[in-house]
Amino acid sequence: MVERLESYLNGTWAAGDGEAATLVNPATEAVLAEIRGVRSLADAVRWGRTVGGTNVRALSLAERAERLGKLAKLLHGQREELISIAVANGGNTRGDAKFDIDGATAVLASYAALLPTLGVGPWIAEGEAAPIHKGAKIRAQHVLLPRRGLAVHINAFNFPAWGMIGKLAVAFAAGMPVLSKPATSTALLAARIAKIVLDSGLLPEGAFQLLLGPAGDLLDQLGPQDVVAFTGSADTGARIRGHERVIAANVRTNIEADSLNAVVVGPDVQPGSELFDLVVRDAVVELTQKAGQKCTATRRMLVPTALLPELREALADRLAAIAAKTGDPADDAVRMGPLSTKSQLADARAGLAELGKHAERIVGDPTRTSFAGVAPGVGYFLEPILLQATAAAALDPGSAFHHREVFGPVATLLPYDGSVAQAATIVGLGEGSLVGTLYSDDREFTASAVASLGPWLGRLVLGTEKLAGAAVSPGCVFPVCNHGGPGRAGDGAELGGRSGLSFYLQRTTLQGGAAELARLLGTASSES
Amino acid sequence: MVERLESYLNGTWAAGDGEAATLVNPATEAVLAEIRGVRSLADAVRWGRTVGGTNVRALSLAERAERLGKLAKLLHGQREELISIAVANGGNTRGDAKFDIDGATAVLASYAALLPTLGVGPWIAEGEAAPIHKGAKIRAQHVLLPRRGLAVHINAFNFPAWGMIGKLAVAFAAGMPVLSKPATSTALLAARIAKIVLDSGLLPEGAFQLLLGPAGDLLDQLGPQDVVAFTGSADTGARIRGHERVIAANVRTNIEADSLNAVVVGPDVQPGSELFDLVVRDAVVELTQKAGQKCTATRRMLVPTALLPELREALADRLAAIAAKTGDPADDAVRMGPLSTKSQLADARAGLAELGKHAERIVGDPTRTSFAGVAPGVGYFLEPILLQATAAAALDPGSAFHHREVFGPVATLLPYDGSVAQAATIVGLGEGSLVGTLYSDDREFTASAVASLGPWLGRLVLGTEKLAGAAVSPGCVFPVCNHGGPGRAGDGAELGGRSGLSFYLQRTTLQGGAAELARLLGTASSES
Repeated sequence: MVERLESYLNGTWAAGDGEAATLVNPATEAVLAEIRGVRSLADAVRWGRTVGGTNVRALSLAERAERLGKLAKLLHGQREELISIAVANGGNTRGDAKFDIDGATAVLASYAALLPTLGVGPWIAEGEAAPIHKGAKIRAQHVLLPRRGLAVHINAFNFPAWGMIGKLAVAFAAGMPVLSKPATSTALLAARIAKIVLDSGLLPEGAFQLLLGPAGDLLDQLGPQDVVAFTGSADTGARIRGHERVIAANVRTNIEADSLNAVVVGPDVQPGSELFDLVVRDAVVELTQKAGQKCTATRRMLVPTALLPELREALADRLAAIAAKTGDPADDAVRMGPLSTKSQLADARAGLAELGKHAERIVGDPTRTSFAGVAPGVGYFLEPILLQATAAAALDPGSAFHHREVFGPVATLLPYDGSVAQAATIVGLGEGSLVGTLYSDDREFTASAVASLGPWLGRLVLGTEKLAGAAVSPGCVFPVCNHGGPGRAGDGAELGGRSGLSFYLQRTTLQGGAAELARLLGTASSES
Repeated sequence: MVERLESYLNGTWAAGDGEAATLVNPATEAVLAEIRGVRSLADAVRWGRTVGGTNVRALSLAERAERLGKLAKLLHGQREELISIAVANGGNTRGDAKFDIDGATAVLASYAALLPTLGVGPWIAEGEAAPIHKGAKIRAQHVLLPRRGLAVHINAFNFPAWGMIGKLAVAFAAGMPVLSKPATSTALLAARIAKIVLDSGLLPEGAFQLLLGPAGDLLDQLGPQDVVAFTGSADTGARIRGHERVIAANVRTNIEADSLNAVVVGPDVQPGSELFDLVVRDAVVELTQKAGQKCTATRRMLVPTALLPELREALADRLAAIAAKTGDPADDAVRMGPLSTKSQLADARAGLAELGKHAERIVGDPTRTSFAGVAPGVGYFLEPILLQATAAAALDPGSAFHHREVFGPVATLLPYDGSVAQAATIVGLGEGSLVGTLYSDDREFTASAVASLGPWLGRLVLGTEKLAGAAVSPGCVFPVCNHGGPGRAGDGAELGGRSGLSFYLQRTTLQGGAAELARLLGTASSES
């Protein structure tokens, strides 16, 4: 008997009335659950906006913080059950699953800690009151107020826990009700977490709704105070941003799209150094964690020509060891699981064929069909693949590795001359990325690279010899760091501490007398 | 001989090769100048991005500030000539013209004063470095870096000086080169100012280009590091935001659109009080300054039912006096000039017919054709018009005054019950505005209204008895105040001091060791 998952909309758990989709184990292809879409979302949107909005805004910032902190503890307490679900439906190893689930609790805890520092509400003051012009009695004070709409969250299949809970934490902290739509293929984990969250009673009525299956007519229901935060492909992001109703009502959108993230190995990095080892370690993590299905995974590695042979050799050895342990993640010896769906695998193979036109495959076989723990031909597996381009191809804007993201354990080595100028040119050919990494102990090189690479990146990780031991892999997103990059990455911004709240808030100037503004900001007030 | 205006693109002044348009005096209908469009903007976009971008970024923040300060003085020195042009081509009275021109110099001066407080560049640090998680050695520091593209500015006809120079000041301050397209009908002033700015040599080569006439293929040339800031109608704003290339490349846009700005007269306001007089004075300014052609002009006045008769009478008297002095602004006795174009007048009359379905016209005659200083039937004049709705119509989302902006000296009185709840409902029916105003000395009413009205507004002006003498009319935008509102107003944000820069900057997290980040941020560095 296949479990039928239910959406929670308009105060009720119910299976949808739309088309059915099945959720499978991507390693074994066993069917795990069924989802049916929901045709009409008008009532849910209205209910969230009115009942949910009123209830969320009625809570002080301290009260919201308390709820978020309790949710973090609650989910952490059910971590083992959640990990099992992620292994079964997400193709995750235990490590992959923890990365997703602990990431979710980290965002809850981080915003729980931040909120009480921002005042008592209902507004968050920004900066000090300033005279509107030199010598004026009238002052301007900026305040941030929760938008009076619904926050629609549309998440990607690769982080069902972190994507849903991370966005929920920030929206709820800011004072907006949420309707969250997980990706269908891995929705088992999201649905279980949503059930835990809703059953806990920690969120007031209407603060959180769960929509399983396709988005239906959701976007058509949105208005000028609603927001849509989307994580997923650039194509779907463009469709959301260009949606007729979104454009007509100026629905605020935040898009986080996959991108061609790059690392730049500085010309000073020596084989055998701790920094060289960090380059290798990070690269292996980024290629293989969640089978490379991270929007922050490294896709392009810029390496000084002289260093290329040693680096390639070190990577080939490490990746071969993981290829040998790629298989069903239910087996604890397995180091890398499958891609999430059959179509993801087909897409990755098609992408590899495209990359192959401009780069040579030096590690991995995309046609391999036999993997640990499953019968040959079963499961959506792809072993780690490393490609290498020529220096000329690296500088060619037309090269596929600059515009085609293969969403799997795939990266391309790009030789460069070791100059910041050439590194910036090559990184820029990706047209905007979520994250970049620079490995160097040369301070001048680093300072110049920050100025030149930074505008193309939402985050720039600086790897140095001294801190190699304390470094975390660049694809890891922390709640205090901006998440989002320009251009291809969607030009969005999420998290980053306080600034992550701003997407859900209206920034309004209050223009009035100095004493009046001071009195107003010193007083909590309720809405009418 | 009609003057033929030239664009400044790609380092050269030249008339375009496209279709011709004529610029007229809207009071006398005399032809003043001719503009021809430019078909291909590819070279100009490339030149701005490369030559201009490199040159602007090479200047330190202090150097940019110095140039902005000098430009402010330069334009102020040529104020009289600029006023004459605004009177002739803009239909402005001298007061209207000063409002536009002095507004431009104010933004230049404000950002000149702000910039040196932000460090030495090339980045602007935001906040302090924070551990990426509790106890971590690695820290996150957010920095703002100029985007590597071109800032395209598309401006409205009503503020040819302030619109062009205000946007230029902020973009240049942030470190981006600009291509500015003024609205055609009033481009004489923008073209003259651009000539003064470019001839001064204060801006480096490529930092500023001027495109006269239609936008041609401009938007098709844009890429992921470019930005488009637009001021004008909501319809054109939606076309820009939904433009195929803008969507595909995630070109960052900022839209400031006209909106149904509202004032709320508190239930405590008494006839004969100074606060009552302020309500009347502000309303008359907002209705008649620039003949009501301001995106921040008041369109809806919420008045407690009991106060309505007195307020209506006071307004009718004052508006009648201005109606008698509406005419050619070249005459110093004239208090209000014409609308900017024939089509604006036709559009305003059509809008009035629509408003007339849901409100009664109580002041003004839209069919009047005889005005001071010109022959009957000449000029695009509309005398001040005041309408009044019923309480039921005020609460009806379908009423035209909630969605149809008449861009002229036109406003509608809306009775309400004096409660914050009803005021918030009515204000919200406008679906987002640039500015709102609250007149009250009741602190509880004010605090509650800020929380309830604020999310619909980019700016909320608080008028009180005590500061009535020092108050400025709510439609006046100061550089330290956020300019932009949610929903119908475009959901943009301009100016507002430091935050206005962020549109032109990429916010990037630097993730590294504490000592390394401190050293990096203490060092100025040049790009490669």
